[in-house]
Parts: sequence; C-alpha cells; structure tokens
Amino acid sequence: MTQYKDNKMDGNLRIIPLGGCEEVGRNMTVFEYGQDIVILDMGLQFPEEDMPGIDYVIPNTEYLKGKEKNIRAVVFSHGHLDHIGAAPILLKKLGNPPIIGRPLTIEMVKHRQEDFERNSSKKLKTTYIKDLQQKINIGSFTLSFFQIDHTIMDAVGVILQTPVATAIHPGDWSIEKNPVNREAIKYSHLAELKRPTILMLESLGSTNFKKPVTEEEMLNNLYKLMSQAPGRTIIATFSSQIQRIKQILEFAAKTGRKVVLDGFSMKLNIEIATKLGYVKIPKGVIIAIDKARDYSDNKVIIVCTGAQGEEMAALSRIVAGNHKFIKLKKEDTVIFSSSVIPGNERTVQRLKDNLYRLSDNVYHSDIIDVHISGHSNIEGIKQMIGDIKADYFVPVYGNHYFLKESAKIAYDLGYSKDKVFVPDNGSIIKFTGMGAEILKEKAPSNYVFVDGLGVGDIGEIVLRDRQMLAEDGMFVIVAVIDRQTGKVKGSPDIISRGFVYLRESKDLLAQTRRKVIEIVNKTAGHGGAVNWIYVKDELRNKIGDFLHTKTERRPMVLPVVIEV
Amino acid sequence: MTQYKDNKMDGNLRIIPLGGCEEVGRNMTVFEYGQDIVILDMGLQFPEEDMPGIDYVIPNTEYLKGKEKNIRAVVFSHGHLDHIGAAPILLKKLGNPPIIGRPLTIEMVKHRQEDFERNSSKKLKTTYIKDLQQKINIGSFTLSFFQIDHTIMDAVGVILQTPVATAIHPGDWSIEKNPVNREAIKYSHLAELKRPTILMLESLGSTNFKKPVTEEEMLNNLYKLMSQAPGRTIIATFSSQIQRIKQILEFAAKTGRKVVLDGFSMKLNIEIATKLGYVKIPKGVIIAIDKARDYSDNKVIIVCTGAQGEEMAALSRIVAGNHKFIKLKKEDTVIFSSSVIPGNERTVQRLKDNLYRLSDNVYHSDIIDVHISGHSNIEGIKQMIGDIKADYFVPVYGNHYFLKESAKIAYDLGYSKDKVFVPDNGSIIKFTGMGAEILKEKAPSNYVFVDGLGVGDIGEIVLRDRQMLAEDGMFVIVAVIDRQTGKVKGSPDIISRGFVYLRESKDLLAQTRRKVIEIVNKTAGHGGAVNWIYVKDELRNKIGDFLHTKTERRPMVLPVVIEV
Repeated sequence: MTQYKDNKMDGNLRIIPLGGCEEVGRNMTVFEYGQDIVILDMGLQFPEEDMPGIDYVIPNTEYLKGKEKNIRAVVFSHGHLDHIGAAPILLKKLGNPPIIGRPLTIEMVKHRQEDFERNSSKKLKTTYIKDLQQKINIGSFTLSFFQIDHTIMDAVGVILQTPVATAIHPGDWSIEKNPVNREAIKYSHLAELKRPTILMLESLGSTNFKKPVTEEEMLNNLYKLMSQAPGRTIIATFSSQIQRIKQILEFAAKTGRKVVLDGFSMKLNIEIATKLGYVKIPKGVIIAIDKARDYSDNKVIIVCTGAQGEEMAALSRIVAGNHKFIKLKKEDTVIFSSSVIPGNERTVQRLKDNLYRLSDNVYHSDIIDVHISGHSNIEGIKQMIGDIKADYFVPVYGNHYFLKESAKIAYDLGYSKDKVFVPDNGSIIKFTGMGAEILKEKAPSNYVFVDGLGVGDIGEIVLRDRQMLAEDGMFVIVAVIDRQTGKVKGSPDIISRGFVYLRESKDLLAQTRRKVIEIVNKTAGHGGAVNWIYVKDELRNKIGDFLHTKTERRPMVLPVVIEV
Repeated sequence: MTQYKDNKMDGNLRIIPLGGCEEVGRNMTVFEYGQDIVILDMGLQFPEEDMPGIDYVIPNTEYLKGKEKNIRAVVFSHGHLDHIGAAPILLKKLGNPPIIGRPLTIEMVKHRQEDFERNSSKKLKTTYIKDLQQKINIGSFTLSFFQIDHTIMDAVGVILQTPVATAIHPGDWSIEKNPVNREAIKYSHLAELKRPTILMLESLGSTNFKKPVTEEEMLNNLYKLMSQAPGRTIIATFSSQIQRIKQILEFAAKTGRKVVLDGFSMKLNIEIATKLGYVKIPKGVIIAIDKARDYSDNKVIIVCTGAQGEEMAALSRIVAGNHKFIKLKKEDTVIFSSSVIPGNERTVQRLKDNLYRLSDNVYHSDIIDVHISGHSNIEGIKQMIGDIKADYFVPVYGNHYFLKESAKIAYDLGYSKDKVFVPDNGSIIKFTGMGAEILKEKAPSNYVFVDGLGVGDIGEIVLRDRQMLAEDGMFVIVAVIDRQTGKVKGSPDIISRGFVYLRESKDLLAQTRRKVIEIVNKTAGHGGAVNWIYVKDELRNKIGDFLHTKTERRPMVLPVVIEV
C-alpha cells in the first residue's frame, strides 16, 4: 500500500473523491480529519462499451486499507444506484461501518444488501435521519443536512463540519422553481455556516443552457395525455420514481381510473414508500395485472419499468410480444416519463422504433415534456454558487469536462483560481486552517470491475482478450504430434467461433490444416529435440498471418500441441 | 429468389427503399418503372453495439438479382459515406451500371473505389451533372436536379419523372435561412412539376424543435474564437467539410495566419475540390505541419480529422501524445466544428475529457455554436412540405420513429392517410396512374455485414458467438483419452481467454481438471463402445454449470476429445 506521508493526526481535513469525478456513476467521497473518516455515497457505474461482460464498476477503496477502524460512518445522499449500488460489496469490505441516511434511502440500501446476500441487511448498523434539523456528532465531524430537489424522494444535502473547514455537498440536485404542493427551496441559509466553507457541487448540467421543465408543466402534460388516451396508457419510468407514481395514483383515483404496477423493483419501492408513510395508495386504485381486462381500456394505466430498453423489463417484453398479460394495441398510448441514461441511446432508439410500429401514440421528451431532469442547468449552478457563497468551490460528480465547465462558471462569478479545485478520482484535497491545496500524491482510483461473483478479479488483460474475441473471434488449432518423428498425426482439429461461418469456409479450413501440418513438420519434424514454445509461436504467427491474408480478419489463434 | 408476381412491364412506378428507412445510414432507393431501374444512393451504416467486429453494414440487393441489366443508372445525391460508402461493393455486384452525380460526388465515389481496388475507378461509367438545369433521359425516366443545403458541397436534390408519377427526393438536406455570400434556396418551383408528385423527405429532424444555428452565427463564432486564441487553434471537423475548410483558409489569408491540414482524407478532399475549382487556396496560407513552429502560436490554425474520437485520426493522436509534430499546450484552443455521430457519444465524451485536461480552451456545440447541422428541424420539414405541395408524402432516411413523426407533421398539414406512406426497408410502394399502395410482399432487407474481405458471409450465428465470447470469454478443454480404456490420459489441457485471470485462478483450474477426468471416466470409461458426442455434451454442460456456480459467469465451453 502507498504510504501517505502527510497522513497523521495533523488537524487537517482531507477530501478524497474515490470515484465519480471522471465519469457518471460510482460516486464516493472520503472525508478524513485526523483519525476520523466519514464517507459519502458508494455508487456504481454502468460499464462502458469497451468493458464487455462487466456487470458494473465500483470505486477503488485501496486508500482505506488499514484505516477501516477509522471509518465513523457512511452517509448516503439518496437511493439511486450511482450512490448506493456498491454498498453491499464495499460495506462488507470495509468492516461494516455504521450507515446514515434518510429512511427511504436506508431502506433501499437494505434491499440491495438483501439481493446481494440474504439476511445480511440485519447486520447493518443504521442511523435514520428522521428530522432534517438533526445534527450528528461523530469523532471530529458534525453532520447536518439540508433539503434539495432531486428525482427521488428523501434525497438530502449533507454538511460536514470539522474544526478547520465545513464541506457542503448537495449530492445530486436540481432546482425546481415551480414545485407542486410545496414551497421552492432556498439555499441562502448555507451562507451562514462556519467558515471556511467548501461547496462540492454535482455539475452534470454545467453545459446545459436549456430552461428546465417545471414539475407543473410535466404533470400537466402527463395528465393531459392520460385524459385524452383513446386506449390504455402505458407509462415507462424508473423504478425509483416514487413521487411520479404517487402522482399518477392520485390522478387515477380522482378520475376513476385503475393502475397496474408492472416491474419487480418498482412494486418493491412503492411497498417501501407506503410502509414509510410516504405514499398513501388510494383504495381500490391499484389492480392486479390480470384484472386489467375487466375495465375499459381508457380507464387503465400501466406503470412499468424498462424505459432504458432493459431486456428483461416489462416494456421490452411488451414490445417483443412476450408479455403474459399485455399485448400492445394501435390505440394504446405509450409514454416515456424518463430520460435516456448515457450509453443507452441506441438501445432506447431501437425500443422506440419498435413501439412506433405497434402504437400510434408514443410520447417521449423529444416531442413533449413528460419528464423532469434530476440535474440542474447552468442557471441553477450559478444560483447555488451565488446563494451559498462558499470560500472554496469543488465541482464533482461528472465527467472531467463537466467539472471544468463548472469551474469556469465559478471563475465568471469571481472565484480566484486558488479557491477552485477540479479533482480527479483519487485526488487528495487538503484543507488546513490556513489554506488549501491538491496534494501531489493520489489515492489509487483505477476501475474495480464486478463480473458475476468476481469483484476486482477482472483486469486489463481479461478485458482486452474479450475485446479481441468480440472483434474477430477465435481459432483453436489442435495438432497431435508423434513424439518419435515430430510429425503431425492425422488431420489437425480446428475449433473456431466468431470468425467465419465454418460450413461455408471448408476450403479455407482445408488450406489451414495443410498449412499447420507444413509448419509443424518443418519446425518439429527434424528428429532432434523440439522447442515446443517455438512451434506454437510459429503456428500462432503464421496461421494468424495466413488467415489475415485470406480474410483481413485477425481471430485469436490458440495452438494446442499434444505429443503422443 | 422470391418472385414478385406484380413485377412486369406494367406501366407502374415502384419505389423500394432497400436501406436507410429503419436506421441512419446504408441509404439506397430503387425506382422501377417497367423494365427500367434507377437507383438513388448506395450508403453504408456504421455497426451497432451488438455487431462486434463488423466494419460496416450495406443494403441488401437481393431484389435486384436477375434485373442487373435493367439498371439504367445509379444517382448519388452527395458524397457522404451513408450515401456512397457501399458503392464499390455494390456497383461491382450489380454489373457496373452507369453512375450519375455532381462532380465532387463522382470524384469522391471514384476515390472510394480506388481504396477498394486499385485502378478500378477507371472502369466506372460516369455522367457528371455539370449544370443543375441539365435533364437526363434514361429509359422511361427523365432525371432532373435541384439545389439544396447540406453540409457537403455538391449535394443535390433529384427529380425522377416517369409517365405515371414524379418523385422528388432532396437526399439529405437542411434549410439555411441566412447563407453567407448567396441567396437562400426556394423550393416552390417544385410545386410545378408534372403530377402526381411524390415527396420523399429525409426526416432526421422530425422531433427537433430547436431553432437552427445559421451559417452566419456559426462563422462569426468560429472567427471570434480564432481571433482571440492565445495560442494555436486546432479545429477538428469532418474531412468532407470542404466549405468550412475553405472559409477557414479565407479567414487565415485575410488575417495573416497559416493553416495546417492534418488528416489524409481531409487533404485528399481539398485536393479534389481544388482541382474542380471549388476551392481556391490563397497563396502561402497552407503550410506543412513541420513548419508550424516557425510561426508564433497565435498565427497557426490546425484543421484536423478525428472529431468522432477515431483512434487513428489526428486529434486522437494529439490527445494521446503520439502526434509527431503537435504536442498540445494549455493555451491552445481546440474547437469541435462537428456534431457527434449517434453511437459515438461516449467515445467523444472521453476525447473531450482528455482534451480538457490538456487545454484550457476547448469549445464544442454544447457551449458555443461552432457547427451547423446538415438536417432540417420540424420547421424546415413543414416549410418543405408546404412549398412543394406534393400529392404523396413518403418520409425516408432515418429510424422508423423519425419517419412516423414526420408523417404526423404531414397529417397536421392536411395530408390524408392514403397519401402518406411510411416505408420500412424493403417496402414496395406502387404508384399507378390511379393511385398508390404499399404491396404486401417485401424485398429482402436484412443486414449485409462487411467484415474485412467478407461481404455478407457473417451471419447471425457468427455474431452471436462474438457476443458470447465478449461477454464471458471462452474455455477450451482438451482431453486425451486412451482408446483402450476410455479413460483420460494425463492432465487435461485448459485454454481460456476472457474468462478469469488464469494466474490467479489455479484452484479453479485444478478443480475443473479433476471434474473433467471424472466426467470422461464416467461417460466413456466403461470399456464398451463410446458415444463421443454424448461425452462432449456432458463436458460442455457440466463444466459450464460448474464454472457458473463458482463464478456466475458463462464462458463458451468447447471440449476437444482426442483418442489415442
């Protein structure tokens, strides 16, 4: 493990984003003051295109090795997977430190924990933030919280006060100027916190000039589409959109409609929210999916998962015609009340294409505002910076270029360069009583891949092999060689997948077999001691070149030589 | 080959989009009147995520099998790859029919042809459209042309007049309301064509409400950024953006700057355009790349390829630090004068992240308008429909849902359902003197994959294998079996790639070897006749299950059994 010289009980605050500052997802930030560590969020990132087979990517926690006993608490800002998704793996790895969050968030962490290992959620040491005015003292930290807008219930901002500085971190946030049934949130009270203050601001919207859709506009559009729907209404949204589902249930109750919830995680989340008293399901509004046919089509609303084109989710099954109860009709209305997660663009486009074939009434954010973003635009970032007036500004949670653009906004508002830090994953920002700096040394931050049961066991080599296999397939040559003569016995076996269609390539295979025999007999058939490594290298290179000449493809060539 | 009953010399016009109506790319449309066939465009599509290793996808031309001699001409609307990219393969396949296009377009087709097969472009039978007023009579068709706006020089709209109907096809198009140094284009003269008329309209912008950036705004931004650049200006754009490069050259000449062109295809295109007289390079403005250091940085403009993050292109090499002559400096200005091609979102985002680390002045369309789109928005589609007043409306060239949304625009403007056809790839739309319909039968339109030298030889099976290999890798088991006893000799060989990191999985491999011996001895070691297919199946299934239990991954298991 790297030694961090500077890392003693020195009365400084160190802030280390272990993930989430070079990508969207796997958000996790370490706050370290002397021997006290508080962690914010443990998120996961969905794999990029060049990570085939990977389930997801989690933060690298090598920095915390040997310091597990110093971890006083893990705070979760909200229940989205890019903030809680890595919790089951990392909490276990870090010795099960206490966790803190709003009730819905903690319940969602618990459920994820159960999915990971049955009965393991009981071991979690939980502290519920029941009241936003609550203060929690742990070690040298005083934690407090503030209300923010985001697309999931119970999202909170976190304030971490230490003797030398106070960090303000809203987690993911947006600004709702026209909220339904409540006041708009103000942030100016955060300017009164103990100084120096550090604003750590999620900055995904730092290049977004667009005026945000208000909740009111979105709801009005949604209500209008549901009211005018000639047939059933199918609304695809995120399973964590509890607030939206609540609003749909209330609309249905008011207008004499029935609602079907379709999607395991969605039902589960509504169940949790109902238990917590966050949602009151109007009596008789929710019906079982097999009862939908008992009502006239225009009285039925189906809320389902699968807006990202997830293969096994309800919407995909409906579109593929595999859904047990729902066959789409031309006059059904389909609404995507969701955004497209980066990386899913083409999958979602294909899903929409298929939906447009089946239904004449497909609506999504490209054509009508039926969704609100969970992330603020430039205007909001300006407002936040202006209201909170922090001494330091640290843009976080987004690709590097979003953070740089967010920093530019701060410069425009008068911040000097020494008060703004744009961290990478693993950057260590040190705040003393006197000033602040980014240290030269960095915490390890390379990807930790999760694939099946393996956490961190897949490295660059395995990934590169997968990419190569995907590109041009593989070509295994099995040659049985007579130990006495060094010559090939019989005809070499060839096993190939993903390279050419074998049935239509008989000539190529016959030529390759002859070539194999030729190479082996030449390199090994001289009667003396044989260098088998050389024989294999020759096979790999020469057969590789031969296949490339014939096809301009480069399958992975794997020679197997068996002496008998 | 499917027989098309209806397909005689029957005096009807058939329009068959063979590609480009369910995706972006591989645009190709067949116009058939009696025994005369005219083809518009032969484009390629870049591969989707689930097409690993595929170079590109081209239209399926099975419909034309046996009719090659009827093909009177292939017209190319403009020189973008999604309109000419499949030409070398398809022209050869279809017996080298005559080709028609504007000079730049034909020259670009020729160059693509040369890349494909040296000296083959000489065989092309070319007709240059030198004058837009030109009319070309071929068979029952009269071809004429009209000016349109698009992001490549020499893009034209095509009119195909037959005795029963007149098709109007602008190819790809946009509407430039504020062109620099010329008049805005009008389309109302197309309302005067011989009726019935059919408007076939590229409809990529059918969900786009945004006000288009004008050429003037874009140029002003570009000029401003170049004028204010503290260091060198690096402009990344498409190699086919000849007009833009021309404007940059003129700006440089006027302001005493020097221009470096970096990118093989870009230089080639400028060379072609210069030969045609489309670009006049001001004397002394272009300098060799190794001479750039002789000028002060703020007098140097580098125009390069690679705005899509293409690995081998100039910009990628600059960012990776592999460029022989250009090392990026903090004060350099980098401008993306380009859009992001769908599917490249994440690659481009990564490129931008890396650029933002190296330069403090990165500009792209998210933050300032430095590019204009080649595709019209909704407003433009309305204007086009309104100006041309065609009898029939056929939205084309885009994903299905774009075509459906474009059709909705036509309905809103008063078209009745029987006058609008939304085709799929392979749809056959028949126009008689009396009316029009989409036939029930369809032309084959499934993907034709190009991979290396193979055209169409990669099918679903090979692709599925590649996907499987990419997902969890492969696992080859080689067991040598004693013919006498039916038992495994020695230790089975295991070759695995992309599954686990072998060095760290010794236990797993040892267990698997034992398991292999156990399965073989049980299924084959009974001394009687052995069913080797059964032995292999057992190995495949049981080892597959065993590995899945241990890892929750499913590599492709390939057993090789060798009797000795």
